[in-house]
Parts: sequence; structure tokens; C-alpha cells
Amino acid sequence: MTDPRLTELTARAPSLRLLTELADLIHYGRDWTRRWGPAPLAVALPGSIEEVQAIVRWANERQVALVPSGGRTGLSGGAVAARGELVLSLERMNRVLGFSDTDRLLEVEAGITLQAVHEAARSHGLLYPVDFGARGSCTIGGNIATNAGGIRVIRYGTTREWIGGLTVVAGNGELLELNRGLVKNSSGYDLRQLMIGSEGTLGVVVGAQLKLTDPPPPAQTMLLALPHMDALMKVFALFRAQLKLQAFEFFTDVALRHVLAHGAQRAIDADQPYYVVTEYDALDDGDEQTALLAFEDGVREGWISDGVIAQSESQAATLWRLREGITESLAPRKPYKNDIALRIGAMPAFLHEMQALLAREYPQMEVVWFGHIGDGNLHINVLPPEDMQQAEFIAHCERVTRLLADTLQRHGGSISAEHGIGLVKKPYLESTRSEAEIALMRGVRTVFDPNGILNPGKLFD
Amino acid sequence: MTDPRLTELTARAPSLRLLTELADLIHYGRDWTRRWGPAPLAVALPGSIEEVQAIVRWANERQVALVPSGGRTGLSGGAVAARGELVLSLERMNRVLGFSDTDRLLEVEAGITLQAVHEAARSHGLLYPVDFGARGSCTIGGNIATNAGGIRVIRYGTTREWIGGLTVVAGNGELLELNRGLVKNSSGYDLRQLMIGSEGTLGVVVGAQLKLTDPPPPAQTMLLALPHMDALMKVFALFRAQLKLQAFEFFTDVALRHVLAHGAQRAIDADQPYYVVTEYDALDDGDEQTALLAFEDGVREGWISDGVIAQSESQAATLWRLREGITESLAPRKPYKNDIALRIGAMPAFLHEMQALLAREYPQMEVVWFGHIGDGNLHINVLPPEDMQQAEFIAHCERVTRLLADTLQRHGGSISAEHGIGLVKKPYLESTRSEAEIALMRGVRTVFDPNGILNPGKLFD
Repeated sequence: MTDPRLTELTARAPSLRLLTELADLIHYGRDWTRRWGPAPLAVALPGSIEEVQAIVRWANERQVALVPSGGRTGLSGGAVAARGELVLSLERMNRVLGFSDTDRLLEVEAGITLQAVHEAARSHGLLYPVDFGARGSCTIGGNIATNAGGIRVIRYGTTREWIGGLTVVAGNGELLELNRGLVKNSSGYDLRQLMIGSEGTLGVVVGAQLKLTDPPPPAQTMLLALPHMDALMKVFALFRAQLKLQAFEFFTDVALRHVLAHGAQRAIDADQPYYVVTEYDALDDGDEQTALLAFEDGVREGWISDGVIAQSESQAATLWRLREGITESLAPRKPYKNDIALRIGAMPAFLHEMQALLAREYPQMEVVWFGHIGDGNLHINVLPPEDMQQAEFIAHCERVTRLLADTLQRHGGSISAEHGIGLVKKPYLESTRSEAEIALMRGVRTVFDPNGILNPGKLFD
Repeated sequence: MTDPRLTELTARAPSLRLLTELADLIHYGRDWTRRWGPAPLAVALPGSIEEVQAIVRWANERQVALVPSGGRTGLSGGAVAARGELVLSLERMNRVLGFSDTDRLLEVEAGITLQAVHEAARSHGLLYPVDFGARGSCTIGGNIATNAGGIRVIRYGTTREWIGGLTVVAGNGELLELNRGLVKNSSGYDLRQLMIGSEGTLGVVVGAQLKLTDPPPPAQTMLLALPHMDALMKVFALFRAQLKLQAFEFFTDVALRHVLAHGAQRAIDADQPYYVVTEYDALDDGDEQTALLAFEDGVREGWISDGVIAQSESQAATLWRLREGITESLAPRKPYKNDIALRIGAMPAFLHEMQALLAREYPQMEVVWFGHIGDGNLHINVLPPEDMQQAEFIAHCERVTRLLADTLQRHGGSISAEHGIGLVKKPYLESTRSEAEIALMRGVRTVFDPNGILNPGKLFD
């Protein structure tokens, strides 16, 4: 620890844990992206808000860039430290601080994992409803920084809906208690909302008051095979009108082939282009009857080719695996991933156009589509041909992303649905946000972080 | 129209409707507050976004202050033009621009009334769930500017939850299309959220994409009499756990006496200190049975003294009138109003302390409490003694508000639940927001409105 800046930091915060071993620098210096080599100055693991403030003040004085760090499960490079930054990991600040039954608020430190939040909520007979695959590793602070969504947004919304209050160390070192768990508070700008989704560029989230809700009612799971994209939209409208949907996920035949080849159980014939896993409230026989009637309506209209209703929890898990196993089944092929969003109604035209474009420009690449119909959120995985070198593939994919961004812009979409902009999407930000908006964002960033020490180079330069 | 600045404005926007008659200046120059004399320069009634942009650009160049104006039903003076400002009324921009069934989005101009939005949603078989008494006069633009709440926040949240996209002319004249109706969009700061609740100080909201939802299920209404404040909180917890609450409103015996004296029908004996009107989903006999059991539990525990379940829609209306008629019943007495919020769990201690404080300091004044328990939102109406002059009364009330603000601060509350800060609450903003937060808000305001032409003097100086 010879860097004199670190010596000074240690002098200011004597009990601060600092890591400088190479293995730690690599471990904490990157997220799930692999395009940048981790090269942080060091890793700080503060144990208190006071230590976070000491770090931020020191960084301002010494002009050291900070990378706030949660579970680093993002796919946009938002938590990458590749240019000598100090990683500020919240992982030691992972406690539940309190619970109010009357307010249904769970107060936590930012470094707590999503799974630990689920368990704490459950221990009080309540639900924290945001959920997704990385739950065991990702942290609430990171969820807040990207406004994470997941598989039940259609029912519960994104992280934003569940934040009653935030404790933040702003880029200028000031401690902010934003909204303090109030339901109603019309006292000027809601800085809490500004912080949510700001990717660590305005402040370091150190704590949160999370709203909890009633546990979900019993649900039933259905798998559907559909003959075309328009049918997918019709069935979504039909089911949304008849049932209380908790999830409505789609994937293509290409995705299904991969997940079956990876060991998932064949629950349905794989001869249709689109598949849906949907989950809906099933409190009683009446609800189940309604679901069956909706299904039959869909078959009669020619929108549904085939379907399975899970008869047990284990069968529901089998159906869900067809959707949830896709990412893992593709991983060995090192796919190029994009996570985009559109208005729900804009999806069919966008998909038609994009699929035709990709087939014309990149016939040699396999493209796997899946995602959340109810949120307009599409995941695109492009697989490299077996004989293509990684560098050539990445170069092609950058061009694919440019095509994607241009097409999205024409259809009013967003280049990032839930992983943020970070480094990966930075070149494409203008496809989603206007010049005027970006100028305002730059201005806001300067207000919160006048010396530009918080996650510089992420979101925009 | 001799003011040369107005001549120039007319030259730039030849078809802009401008009003300068005294009656118009008075009508458009104030909201429901009556503490400031309206004295605008003129009233502009733009008919298009281009005209709004022309006004904002002109105001920047000529350094004319603008007061964006909706239905002017606010109680914080946010829409008062008392210092030669140009009132920018959106009332002519009141059209429904579009509807998407797939996205469940209703696109409107900002000057549309809340009631017209309700009707448009209903015509598509859907619901825009924000609702309150001023629905016939207030506009969506104003609702957004204050993040209006109302009587069903416990079930549906505030206006913020229902804004899928905003079209805004920023203080610098730039047109912003914020979020464009996307469900998921993690592409930097959510400026839409920043705009909501900003009281016309960052931009002029000219349009919105409103989220719609399923119509509410059939509901049942119950009136309860309760022996003390703690019982009120116990019954709230009990009912929330057992029923799907749509509303849980309380008022005191003092409020009940006023509303009965004003002609409301006596549905219950007025000998208990607290009353509740609650509404909950009642889809079938099972739900009604559950409600009855919850009621009986409350009686057995000694938390409920008496109760009535409405047996018809007209009886439900009779019960609701006891709560909704309070404001009107107090109006002839010209009460001094405060609209505050706390965490739900903080309400009993706050109410005890505040009631004792008021009884000690102002024994001569009658204080009427009512509000939304489920949102922690309390309305306080202080009535002047019959023999007190208005000026003396106002002076006393300013002191009451100071006591209130100090007490709120200790209990972590907010000085404004749903009417904003405007002019009325400006002296008390620091009771709710820290110095550091206010400094950041000032900075943000400067980013959006560098010349300070948007609603200057509101929120903070």
C-alpha cells in the first residue's frame, strides 16, 4: 500500500478495510461483463456511513475516481473499475436495520443481497416482490442504481415502486435522508427518484427503506405454443383481460431448442415459433376455470396451438425452467447480449423489422429472443458461428447493436431495460435520450458531484 | 395591451390568445388560497406546444416570470401570480390525443380536467385511479406538478405511479419527451420523476401518457366509531391484514359535529372521539363475511364501539358524505388549513403531542382533524373564534404552523402531503428537507431554468 493517497485515506479512516492484492483487484474490479480488464487502485470495504463519507470527501480532495460496487452482476459495465479507480464496495454494510409492521417498511443497508431481503420480508409474513435470477449475489444498492426489474414487473413494477426512502452519500460528501419512508410527501423535487437508476453517478446509496406487501396469492403456471407474433400479442391481451397475471414471459423456438439441449424436460412439442410461460392468481376453482376458458378461447381463435397447465408445483418448476434456463443454456456459447425495451404495442413491428434485418445482414449468426411481453422488455442473445474468432464476433456485434439502436429509436424504444447504460450502452445513449435530455443529465450530475469523482466515464463522458 | 414586451410576444406568436382584462387577471392570477392579491402582467392561453415554447423563449429573453397554471385548485399558492408574472394557462390544451389498448396508455394534453380523464378511461372500459374532490376543476398538469394523491392512495398510490410519459417544455425552452410510455427504461436519470411534484419550477408540462388499469371490483363501505387513537391504528392493521382496502379515512367527533350541522345524515351516534369510513373489495359473499368477522374481532378487542355496513350504493354515499362533506361544512368559517404527512406508525405519537400542544397554546381555537390513515396524511383545519379578526387569526395560525412544522420535524413528517410547497409552505420547507437537499434542489432548478423564469418565488427563493 505504497500509494500516498491510500496512506492518507487510511490516516483519515483508520479502521477502514482496504484491499490491494491482485486477486481482490480483479474480483472487485469488474461486473459480469468481460470486455474490460479490471485495474482499480484498491478496494475499500467501509463498515459505516461515516467511512463512506470519509472516502467520498477524500476522493473529492485528491481527485480520485470512485466506483460504487454492489454484487457486480450487471451486464452494462456500470461497476467496472478499469482505470485506477477506488472500488467502494458496500458488501460489509449488509444488515437489516429495522422493520415497521405498521408502515410495512424494512430498513436495510445497501450491501444486503436481494435474497436476504426476501428472507427478511418472509420472516415478517410479507413480500418484497422484486425478483430475478441474480438474487443470491446482487445487492439492493445495485438494484436501486439500475432500477432493476425482473420477472414480476407486470404485477409489481420495478425496484422504483418499492423504495420508501433512501440514505445516500452525495458526490459532494453530504449525507441525504431522502423521503424517510413517507407515502405522501409533496415538498419539492423527489431526489429519491432521481437517485434510482443513476448508476452510482450522483451519490452512493448506503441504505434504503423498502416497502413490503402482502404475500402473493396461490398461482398457476401455464405453458403455451403460439403460431406467430400477432397471436402472442392477442393472447397477452386476452389473458390480461381475464386473469390477474403475475408473469407473461415469451421465448422463441430457437431458445427452446437450446434449453432442451441443455437438459430441460420437453413439456411441449417444439414445432411452433413462439412460446409463453404465464403465471396468474389461482385462488380457487373459479380462477382455474376462468384460465381454462381463456385458454380455450385462444385455441378457438387460432392464437394458441398447444398448451400445458401445471398440475403441481414441481410441474410448474419444469415449465418455468424452459424460460429461466435459457441464459444458462446459452452461456457456453458466449453470446452477445442486449436487453432492450419498447412500448408493448410497438413490439410486433419492431421484432418483424429487426428479425428481417438480422437475417439479411447476419445470416451466419443465430439470434435468440426471449423476454417479458408484459413490460415490453426483450432480451436478445446473438451466438457466434462456431468458426468465428471472438474479436471478429465482437466487431460484428457492435454493428448489430448500432442497427438495433437505430431501429429502436424509430420505434420509440430504450437501449437499456434494466441493466443501465454503464460502459456497454454509452455509445448508444442518444438512440434513447435526446440531446436536450443528455445536456440536462450532465447538468444534474455536476450539481450532485461537482468534482466528477463518482463513476466517471459511465452513462456519458 | 400597451406593454411592449407583450407586443413583442404577440409578434412572435400571432395567434396566441392573450387576456389583459382585470376580471381575467383576477380569475387566472390565484388559486384557492386568498392570501395574495392576483396581479399578473397578462394571461396567455396557448393552443399548441409551439406557442408554449415561444412563450418560454420570449420569457427567457425578456426576463419575464411565468406562472404555469392548471385548474388552480391548490392550497399552497403555487399558482398565484401576484408580482407581474405572465400566467401561462394550459386550459385550452385539454384534448385526449390518443389511446393504446395494448399499452393501456391514454395520451392527453396537460390542461384536461381529471374528470375528463376519468370519463375517457371509462369509455375504454378502464380506470384512471387517482381521484379527489376537485376532479371537475383540477387539471392533469396541476396533478403532476404537485404529485396529487387523493382518497385511494392506499390502493393505487399517488399521481406519480400513473405517469408513463411526460411532454415538457423545460425552462430553457427545449421540448422534452420523457420516458415515452415505456414500462422499463434504465437509460440514465428519470427526468420524468424529477418533473412530477416540481410545481412548475423546472418545466411546463404540456402533455402526459397516463397509465390506465382494470376497473375496481365491487366495493363495500363501512362506517366505524372508535374509542381512541390507538384503537384507530389497531383497526387499520386488522382490516389491512384481512381485507383489500380501497380507502381508510378517519375524522374526529369535532369534524362529525360540523358535517352533521351542515346537513349530512346522522348514520351513527356521535359520542366517540374517532370515526372511520373504509371501503374494501367485496366481490362475493365470502368477502362480505370476512369483513363482518374483522368487524366483530375489532368489537371483541374493544377497538370498535359501533359500526354500520352500507347495504346499498345510496347508503354508501350517505356514509361517504360524513367524510367528504367536512371541507365544505367548514368553509363558511374560513378555516386555516394544513395538509401534512407522517409515516403511518408515527401518527399516534404526533397526534397526541400536537393535540396537547394546541389545547395548551390555543385553547380558544377549534381544531378539526381528518385524513387518510393508510397514507399517513392528516388534514388540519383551525377555526377562528367567532370574535377574532381575520388578520389576528392569520398571525396566530402562522405560529400554529411553526409549532406544527417543529413537531413534524421531530416525528420525521412532511409539511406538505399533496398540495406542494408553493408560497404557503415556503417558510417551513427546512422542517422537511435538509439544507443539503435544498441546496441540491436549487442546483437542479438552475440546470432546468437557468434564467429563473419559471414560477420564481415558489418552493424556495
